[in-house]
Amino acid sequence: MGKVKVDISTSLDGFITGPDDRPGQELGAGGEQLHEWVFGLASWRKPHGLEGGETGPDDDVIKEASTDIGAVVMGRRMFDLGERPWGDDPPFRVPVFVVTHRAKETLEKEGGTTFIFVTDGIESALDQARKAAGDKNISVAGGAETVQQLVAAGLVDEIQLHVAPLFLGRGKRLFDQLGKEIELERIRVVDSPGVTHLKYSVVK
Amino acid sequence: MGKVKVDISTSLDGFITGPDDRPGQELGAGGEQLHEWVFGLASWRKPHGLEGGETGPDDDVIKEASTDIGAVVMGRRMFDLGERPWGDDPPFRVPVFVVTHRAKETLEKEGGTTFIFVTDGIESALDQARKAAGDKNISVAGGAETVQQLVAAGLVDEIQLHVAPLFLGRGKRLFDQLGKEIELERIRVVDSPGVTHLKYSVVK
Repeated sequence: MGKVKVDISTSLDGFITGPDDRPGQELGAGGEQLHEWVFGLASWRKPHGLEGGETGPDDDVIKEASTDIGAVVMGRRMFDLGERPWGDDPPFRVPVFVVTHRAKETLEKEGGTTFIFVTDGIESALDQARKAAGDKNISVAGGAETVQQLVAAGLVDEIQLHVAPLFLGRGKRLFDQLGKEIELERIRVVDSPGVTHLKYSVVK
Repeated sequence: MGKVKVDISTSLDGFITGPDDRPGQELGAGGEQLHEWVFGLASWRKPHGLEGGETGPDDDVIKEASTDIGAVVMGRRMFDLGERPWGDDPPFRVPVFVVTHRAKETLEKEGGTTFIFVTDGIESALDQARKAAGDKNISVAGGAETVQQLVAAGLVDEIQLHVAPLFLGRGKRLFDQLGKEIELERIRVVDSPGVTHLKYSVVK
């Protein structure tokens, strides 16, 4: 069975978006700074339909994180904000299970991405993602509530934070109040001037 | 002129104490886990009057952080909780300026530590610390409010977080709501299984 993985960019003070995230400003005010390190990397550009890009340690991290992903889980707000910028050919290229209270018909996009809307809870979404992924891994894409609920429920195996060198000061925090202690084990740290990649497994 | 430095242990979700910090449980419930990596290190044991201890990369980080410190700034709550456990021979061994609303007479301890209580604000405490430190550096010891106020005011030069491999889930967060963006520059990352040291300078 594959692993359930979280890979997400944060500021040093733990924010994954700036304040006032909305259509046209999907990452919130200033939030794009959390992702600047990734846009030039070959392994990010390729699934986004862009040529070229840098290779090196940061690129290796992205390549590793995007290898053997068989399905994605995300929250409805992330889908709603992301749908337009992702366009007709979203970068996921696997089934994406969207946790929502509002039913919506399955949405088939180009390039292998299908959005399936799951209304009976986050664990059901994860179960369906496991079936779709088979032996491959499942990526929990966000947002904060979705990540937090799955981590708190003990359903995440690995967490990698890509820490950008800034304080954002305001916005949406990834781990606002987990409400419980969770032991982690360091897998490895990779760092470059633009970002530090902290990878942990969750001790169960 | 010396630098103003913050060196502090946090959980991966950004807490520096667990919930319910009080006399007898100064680090809050579970908070001692944030510091487990440090207790066995030679450079921590020495100023605490203990012999022996490990050397290596983590110890080098502590040695570096405690070298050339000429004065300390801390908040009143940290002093109130720390006074008893620190005992007659506190580990600071330099003047410690305590920011407080309640005046208190200067307290001279053994081994070079003197607590001076500053009632006219945090910037005054820092000014007095600068005078006492001369060419040496100033360590901002905590708590969260004191660190946050000085960082938000642009008065901190370097920040080093010692990230312990766990989510604490509750407690006091180091950077709860800075309220503003602050750009950082990575100085270096050192990691071991028990802790990851992330050191940044503040871009001004």
